[in-house]
Formats: sequence, C-alpha cells, structure tokens
Amino acid sequence: MAATATVDLLARARGGDKRSIARLVSVVENDEPGAAEAMRALYPQTGRAQIVGITGPPGGGKSTLVNRLAGTYRERASRVAIVAVDPSSPFTGGAILGDRIRMRERFLDEGIFIRSMASRGHAGGLARATARVVNVLDALGTDVILVETVGVGQEEVDVIRVVDTVCLVTVPGLGDDIQAIKAGVLEIADVLVVNKADRPGADETARDLAQMLSLAKDRPWKTPIVRTSAQSGDGLPQLVDAIDKHRAWSRESGEYLERRRAAARSEVEALLQEALLRELAGRVGESRLAAAVARVAERSLDPYAAVEELLRG
Amino acid sequence: MAATATVDLLARARGGDKRSIARLVSVVENDEPGAAEAMRALYPQTGRAQIVGITGPPGGGKSTLVNRLAGTYRERASRVAIVAVDPSSPFTGGAILGDRIRMRERFLDEGIFIRSMASRGHAGGLARATARVVNVLDALGTDVILVETVGVGQEEVDVIRVVDTVCLVTVPGLGDDIQAIKAGVLEIADVLVVNKADRPGADETARDLAQMLSLAKDRPWKTPIVRTSAQSGDGLPQLVDAIDKHRAWSRESGEYLERRRAAARSEVEALLQEALLRELAGRVGESRLAAAVARVAERSLDPYAAVEELLRG
Repeated sequence: MAATATVDLLARARGGDKRSIARLVSVVENDEPGAAEAMRALYPQTGRAQIVGITGPPGGGKSTLVNRLAGTYRERASRVAIVAVDPSSPFTGGAILGDRIRMRERFLDEGIFIRSMASRGHAGGLARATARVVNVLDALGTDVILVETVGVGQEEVDVIRVVDTVCLVTVPGLGDDIQAIKAGVLEIADVLVVNKADRPGADETARDLAQMLSLAKDRPWKTPIVRTSAQSGDGLPQLVDAIDKHRAWSRESGEYLERRRAAARSEVEALLQEALLRELAGRVGESRLAAAVARVAERSLDPYAAVEELLRG
Repeated sequence: MAATATVDLLARARGGDKRSIARLVSVVENDEPGAAEAMRALYPQTGRAQIVGITGPPGGGKSTLVNRLAGTYRERASRVAIVAVDPSSPFTGGAILGDRIRMRERFLDEGIFIRSMASRGHAGGLARATARVVNVLDALGTDVILVETVGVGQEEVDVIRVVDTVCLVTVPGLGDDIQAIKAGVLEIADVLVVNKADRPGADETARDLAQMLSLAKDRPWKTPIVRTSAQSGDGLPQLVDAIDKHRAWSRESGEYLERRRAAARSEVEALLQEALLRELAGRVGESRLAAAVARVAERSLDPYAAVEELLRG
C-alpha cells in the first residue's frame, strides 16, 4: 500500500467506516505493506479500550456468550469489537462459519465489528497477529474488545495474554476434562464462568472449580466464579460486573500496567528479532545458506557447525 | 552437564542403556547444558531411522494403533521408539497418562523406547524439540521411530514435518469433522487410515476420503486409503506395507531428500536466529531494552521506533 493510501485509509477508519476498518485490520493482521506505517501512526492512540478475553474448551457455548456480552456492552458503549481466534484451525473455515452465524444476529448493528482469525499465514505467529489487530481496533476508538479463543493449549494461552481480563468458560458435565484445564489455564484466569448453568451438575462444577482455586498458587486477586446461561441471558449482568471489578482491581494494583509492559516487551522483542533476521539475510546470503543446508541434509556438516561457519563468513 | 559427563552418557546411550537414552533425550529435548555438544557428536549418525508420523483428530484410536505398529515393527527391527506429542496439552499430564497405559503393555520389551512430550517449556518450540528428540533416537541406532501427534492444527502440522511418512488417522462417524481436517492436513498425508473400520460407516468414510483426495492438489504420490482395526489388529500388515511403499517411492523420487533438506533448513535457520539473539542481547543490553519497553507500554514510544532506537545505539 502506498503511503498516501495508508493515510487515506486511516482517516476513513478513524471516522468509523466499517469497510475501511476491516481493510486496515487485514493490513496489520497479515503484515501487508503499510502495516508498520499504520501501526506507528496508530500506536499513540492505543491503551484506551477495555480488552476482555473469553477462553475455554470447545463446547462451552463461548460464541453465544461472546455474542451476548457484545450486546450487553453495546448498551453502554458506542463501539464494540469481537475478535474470534481459533488456533486449532489451520484455515479460516470454522472461524468464518462462526462469523456468519454471529453476523446474522449483529450485522445490522453499526457499532459492532467482528473479525475471525485462524492459525495460518500470520507473520510472527497468531498471538502477535492478534495483538496487532487488538491494537488497531483500540486505536480506532473501540470501547470494548472481546477476544474469543477456542481450546486450552499453549497457543491459546499466548493469544489470550493480550487482554486485560481473562474469562475461562466451562460447562457442567465436562467431568475429567476439567482436570485437564486445571494446571495450564487456571493460573491465567481472572474470572471463572460456569456456562449452561441451568444444566444438571452446575453446583458440582462450581464446587470443583472452587476447590481447584483453593489449591492453586495464591494470587492477590480472588478469582470469582460466575454462573451464566448464555442462551437465556441469566447471569450476564453478574459476569459484566465481575469483569468490571477485575478491571478496577487491576488498575489499582498495578497488574494492568504489568500486563501492558509484558505485551510491549514481547512486541519489541519480536520486532527486534525480525530486524535482525533481515540483517542476517544480507550478511549470510541465500546461496551460502542453501549450500550449508544441503551439507547438513546429507550429514556432512552438523547444524551447529553450519551456523558457526555462516556467521564467521 | 560437564563435557566428560556428556561423553560418558553418549557412550552408555549408544550401548543401548535405556536410562542413559532417556537422560540424553531429556537433555536435548529441554536444550539443557550439553545439548549442543551431544547433538554435534550425534548428528553425523542421523538419517538412518525410518520415521513414521501418526496424526489425526482426537478419538481416532491413534495410541492403540501406534502401540500395535510398534509391536509389528519390533518383529523385524531391533529398536523401535514412540514419541507421543500433544501440542494441545500445556502440561504433561495427559501425555504421561497415555505413556503409563502403553508402558504396562510394552515396558518389558527392552527394544521399545517411549517418550511423551507436551507443549510447554521447549526452547524454540515443540516442533524443534521433537526434531531434536527424533535426531537423537535416530543417531543412537533406533530402526523405526513412530511420532504420534493429537489434533489437526498448525502446530501438529509443524511437528509432523520431521517424519518421512505421514499417516492421517480418521474413524467412521466423525461426520462433519472430516470436513474440518480436509483443507489443512490432507495435503500433508501420505497414507490415510480409516481406523475402527469394523464400525458402521467405514465404507462411507473411505468413500468421503477418496473423494476429497480426488479434489485435492495433484501429487505424484497416490495416497492410499487403508482400513484398520487397532483393537483386533486387522489391517495392520496392509498399513505397514503402505508405509513401506511410500518410503520406497519417496527415496526414488527425491521427495525424501527434499524433506530432509527442509528439516535441515529450518534447524539451521532456528539456530542462526538464536545465535543472533544472543548477539543482540550483548549489543542492546537488558537495561536499555527495559527502558524502551517501559516507554512503549506507556505509549510515549511506538514499538517500531523503539527497535530503530535500540539498534542504532
């Protein structure tokens, strides 16, 4: 994208034009030409949005819950965004489907922006692409950004680190699966949600979660457990309240600043790394690299010796 | 680990001592001190093992199939290894459980080595750690290495790239889930397996797969579809035969060398990157980095400008 095109696009997106916002988000998501320029122009305006993460194992009704939350926030905020991230999907099929379903309900609302992201084709990885998208939406004046991820693995944990408040959604009857989310994800949850709480077993699930919390590492923030039914809307006000309370605590305690710093560090380190790789490409050169790789592949050189040789040259 | 300790460990592991193999695998898996030294010593001996990948969505009976395959290969090879990788698990709980179950059946067989890997705590990521572990086992004289991964996401695709032959395992009755594996994973499968083929719907599943293959990008290798029942052992000889045929084709066509080259390239590039980061740490310094990060976090500097400043200094 030419420099003037970027400037034009920025102006239209700032004005709230949804197609321009979508285009700009794509530019930074895929690190297209103009992305760095746009990010530099937008960065000073970031840091204003409330960023809420919704994560948990599949089948927890997260999409419906996010949809409801968007509606609830929309009552008090003029611009809400949903960023739905599916690290388990190497392509956008599943995510796009979710989009469509949500769209049907929300696409007449000019104040809600929706973006789906799958795990393929993001320079620097999905977590960084998500961070860039969130930053752009933040800078363009979005009041609340809901980041939804599916799954309980390391990539989801990385993606969700960009948010201010992490809601972990479970449902009754997951049984042993609850054990599976315990160790890795419980420690990053700020609010625990038992969704589909009208189902049998909700009490037991809430009790299990409370017990796990009591065993977990002591944190200054006391993680609340909220019961919701995304379908009926029951418990939604309580969930919004719990998120607000965490936000207030986070700002007071300095946790908020600490998370922002961690996010800034990982972005700066990643950009440094990219800059170095460009420098390296110039220093090593593709033909020398290819020759070394061929010798490593046929085992006449080990990879460590190859690197020493390439950097010496 | 001191240099002499590494040499001793290497000698014992080469002799087939299982505890030494396990220790050496841990050293390279976690990139502990001595890892680079061990890898350098072992690398010239790599490239001899047959490396077979087993992947697919959860619930396909992959572990039982891998267990059976290990037994079948053990009849013709003296040393077989299973590397079970679970990218969706941020901790080793699930993987270890699978280990135990397999162990019960196999742990009296001195010729079978088993290692579970979860997604946490691997320098350079899970795919690279898997590649290192496979290389060590290969160099130590393992004849057949079975790499099992759970799931169908990008991380699984990355992990499975280290193998010579990829088997994608599905089961009857997955329904729409088969659609979900289509786009991303079908293109890396060399052998398609319909496991639990005694269940109703196996014909339909095989037909669906055949149809997907006919729609997929044309490859010189004609991907076979094999029906198995890991429980009863039906179809196992046919599966081993299909894997052998792919191996023969791969060596003849040059595909084998190409994959080895791609693996060598990603290892060399990753090591180059690590070397550069060490160089960078010296050049930039933690205190300058921390100061820049703090300014980025409070939005008085954008990350791109921070990187320019740090590299200029």
